[in-house]
Amino acid sequence: MPDRTVFRGTAFSCDADDRVQALVDHLFVVEDGFITAVLPADDPAAAEAVGDAEAVSTQPGQYWLPGFVDLHVHAPQWAQAGTALDLPLADWLRQHTFPLEARFADVDFARRVYASLVAELLARGTTTALYFATVHPTSSLELVLACAAAGQRGLVGKVVMDGPDNPDFYKDADASAAVADTGWFIRRVQELRAATGAEVYPVITPRFIPSCTDEALAGLGALARDLGVHVQSHCAESDWESSHVRERTGRSDSAALDGFGLLGERSVLAHCVHLDDDDVALFASTGTAVAHCPLSNAFFGDAVAPVRRYARAGVDVGLGTDISGGFDPSLWSAIRQTVTSSRMLESGVDAAQPPAARGVPDSRVTFEQAFALATAGGGRSLSLPIGRLAEGYAWDAQLIDVVGHRPLPIFDDDEPERILQRIITLATPANIRAVWVQGRKVVADGEVVVGH
Amino acid sequence: MPDRTVFRGTAFSCDADDRVQALVDHLFVVEDGFITAVLPADDPAAAEAVGDAEAVSTQPGQYWLPGFVDLHVHAPQWAQAGTALDLPLADWLRQHTFPLEARFADVDFARRVYASLVAELLARGTTTALYFATVHPTSSLELVLACAAAGQRGLVGKVVMDGPDNPDFYKDADASAAVADTGWFIRRVQELRAATGAEVYPVITPRFIPSCTDEALAGLGALARDLGVHVQSHCAESDWESSHVRERTGRSDSAALDGFGLLGERSVLAHCVHLDDDDVALFASTGTAVAHCPLSNAFFGDAVAPVRRYARAGVDVGLGTDISGGFDPSLWSAIRQTVTSSRMLESGVDAAQPPAARGVPDSRVTFEQAFALATAGGGRSLSLPIGRLAEGYAWDAQLIDVVGHRPLPIFDDDEPERILQRIITLATPANIRAVWVQGRKVVADGEVVVGH
Repeated sequence: MPDRTVFRGTAFSCDADDRVQALVDHLFVVEDGFITAVLPADDPAAAEAVGDAEAVSTQPGQYWLPGFVDLHVHAPQWAQAGTALDLPLADWLRQHTFPLEARFADVDFARRVYASLVAELLARGTTTALYFATVHPTSSLELVLACAAAGQRGLVGKVVMDGPDNPDFYKDADASAAVADTGWFIRRVQELRAATGAEVYPVITPRFIPSCTDEALAGLGALARDLGVHVQSHCAESDWESSHVRERTGRSDSAALDGFGLLGERSVLAHCVHLDDDDVALFASTGTAVAHCPLSNAFFGDAVAPVRRYARAGVDVGLGTDISGGFDPSLWSAIRQTVTSSRMLESGVDAAQPPAARGVPDSRVTFEQAFALATAGGGRSLSLPIGRLAEGYAWDAQLIDVVGHRPLPIFDDDEPERILQRIITLATPANIRAVWVQGRKVVADGEVVVGH
Repeated sequence: MPDRTVFRGTAFSCDADDRVQALVDHLFVVEDGFITAVLPADDPAAAEAVGDAEAVSTQPGQYWLPGFVDLHVHAPQWAQAGTALDLPLADWLRQHTFPLEARFADVDFARRVYASLVAELLARGTTTALYFATVHPTSSLELVLACAAAGQRGLVGKVVMDGPDNPDFYKDADASAAVADTGWFIRRVQELRAATGAEVYPVITPRFIPSCTDEALAGLGALARDLGVHVQSHCAESDWESSHVRERTGRSDSAALDGFGLLGERSVLAHCVHLDDDDVALFASTGTAVAHCPLSNAFFGDAVAPVRRYARAGVDVGLGTDISGGFDPSLWSAIRQTVTSSRMLESGVDAAQPPAARGVPDSRVTFEQAFALATAGGGRSLSLPIGRLAEGYAWDAQLIDVVGHRPLPIFDDDEPERILQRIITLATPANIRAVWVQGRKVVADGEVVVGH
């Protein structure tokens, strides 16, 4: 007999076309972590669908939302989140980030930082995260274990960086060791998943072209083809990165990654601020997804990624916090910054220029579209059945309370659409009462349930 | 005998040059709401300075910060915060905002909305707010009473909008009624202050030039000269507003407001996105302050206000949330968006342009500078002794807890500067344990103490 629970209440979730729907007083039948039926509570078939399942109902002022999918997190950088945002990308990596990441050779330190990060992400409604760990294979497994212990769906990569420009204290020994360590890491994660049922996945993770040799990139591309696992890297993040790759390979960042066999349905590339139309077509034709990180891009990207243009071209797009290039661990903030940055792309920023020369028309992302990026878009980017409260999807959900400790300003206009707008724009962690991942409750009464 | 309390702990506050200082384990002697001495706890004179005063000390992981000064809040718009951000300014006013504000003729509705807003601002550490109420004199007093009841320092204006373009259902009867009602409102607020000691101030508040007749603007300018009270309005918010004023008056928005006698040391003008060098010089020479509202500007401003340029020219600058043109009531968010928007102004937004043509050099605001704008800059803008934890200033303070319910990611680098960076970037309302306004505790254990 499957484990069955019925969740009842009003939910907000995207339909198959990424339009946000209000499902007023619905039942969500969940069996072994997956939604097997969605129906209005007053449907004649409701009683039969519920049967003797355990029932979890919302209180007044509470709503179901899908959990968020964070497509770009550098887990070790949680230890410097909020600091050190004063340098350009290449200097920032050398002076701040590589020395910090090198410390994760210390497994005890890694364990402390990773446990904190996973808990803080879950408390903010992030039920799935696509993580860069560090170069160290064993220490990177600590992040997988932290996800498994706290019940977060974690896609984790041991970082590959074997190129000659990396610091001696923080790099792979050589290309073949980098590829072999990646293979070892993938097997360990798959074994853990098979043995425990934890929702953890291995990810092939070349840091980015500037830090990897061609040999390592080609080796990882072959692994991706052979094993069919997820792939992540950075692409076209900044002027510096784009020009570096073009000088070295004669091609754009996306075309070069494609040449190494690293694009595909399970590939997610972070940033993608500087793509031309050929690049965009390559993303669409290969099924490669963009992890849009608007906060980080303001500090390191040199421009705003035109994600509406990408979406119109049929590219899968989701959102990332990019801890710690982005300081804020909340995808709620990323949704809001996506909208805000898109408005600034559309209007431009320099008042000294004439209005028509200032911005890029048709760039704006609405709050509902940004909400879709953080949920359904993230799921589609990972090719996993997550990000929607719909039949066949995992029960990854947040229970939002708009009337409790920090009530939202709802006075008398309580139509569902107005409620949702306030939730998207104004909810803080205090409004997230509980969180489930694949049917398992991982946050209760606003507190993370570790090792549940 | 004065009421004396000594607050002990590590504090972060600006010095007289707006540099943020860490005052490690200091004593702050507060008498009748004002700081009369600041000294290290191990100073030989400490015991004498403390005497038999009540002592309030931080727990480990807690820090004193000055309370925030929000220089631009449309209090009635709290009822639509987070909604209706899809239209340009003039349409947004007509379709959403004026119909909402008209409802504040209903004093009971006003009371509910204002009490909620003041509580939510205090819970986020905003100890002083400069408010637009509505056209209605009596209902606007409800906002003053809400501030007095909750203990927030409130500067409140009855809005003047007597021009022919305003809707019939929401406007002053005529210019003389508008000026007379403003005078009545000022007297009532001054009487309340005198009778109760509440930290409430009246503000002369022409909405903006497009909504006011010349006669009303001149009448309010004469009132400002006669009474010496604060003045607020909007200035150069958008392309539309700037061109409207230029067509009507033949001058820039700032020059026109100056012509009506509305600039001065106690004047605060919101937005100021579109100022030329002459305008900036006029702000500096008259002592007029800019309320920078970066979130709102992304939706309605058509560009980013270059506040570093203004500060370099000697203009007083502070921050505003601009509820509800800005959806977020937190000045913490405004600090972060100030930095983020300034980086986007500096780098530009359109990747299709060459890097050198994309942005405006030397525009970036650091996190510490933005923190200074929200505290010392706000106090200086209002010409009030607030915004710093220094001798002669009011004890307006936030007690920040970095290790409690939502701990900040501090692992082993706990130098004060690194702590402060994390507080500025990562604190949420859950990290604000208590708040004082002029020596009175108005938030305790994260909850607002109303009518204390």
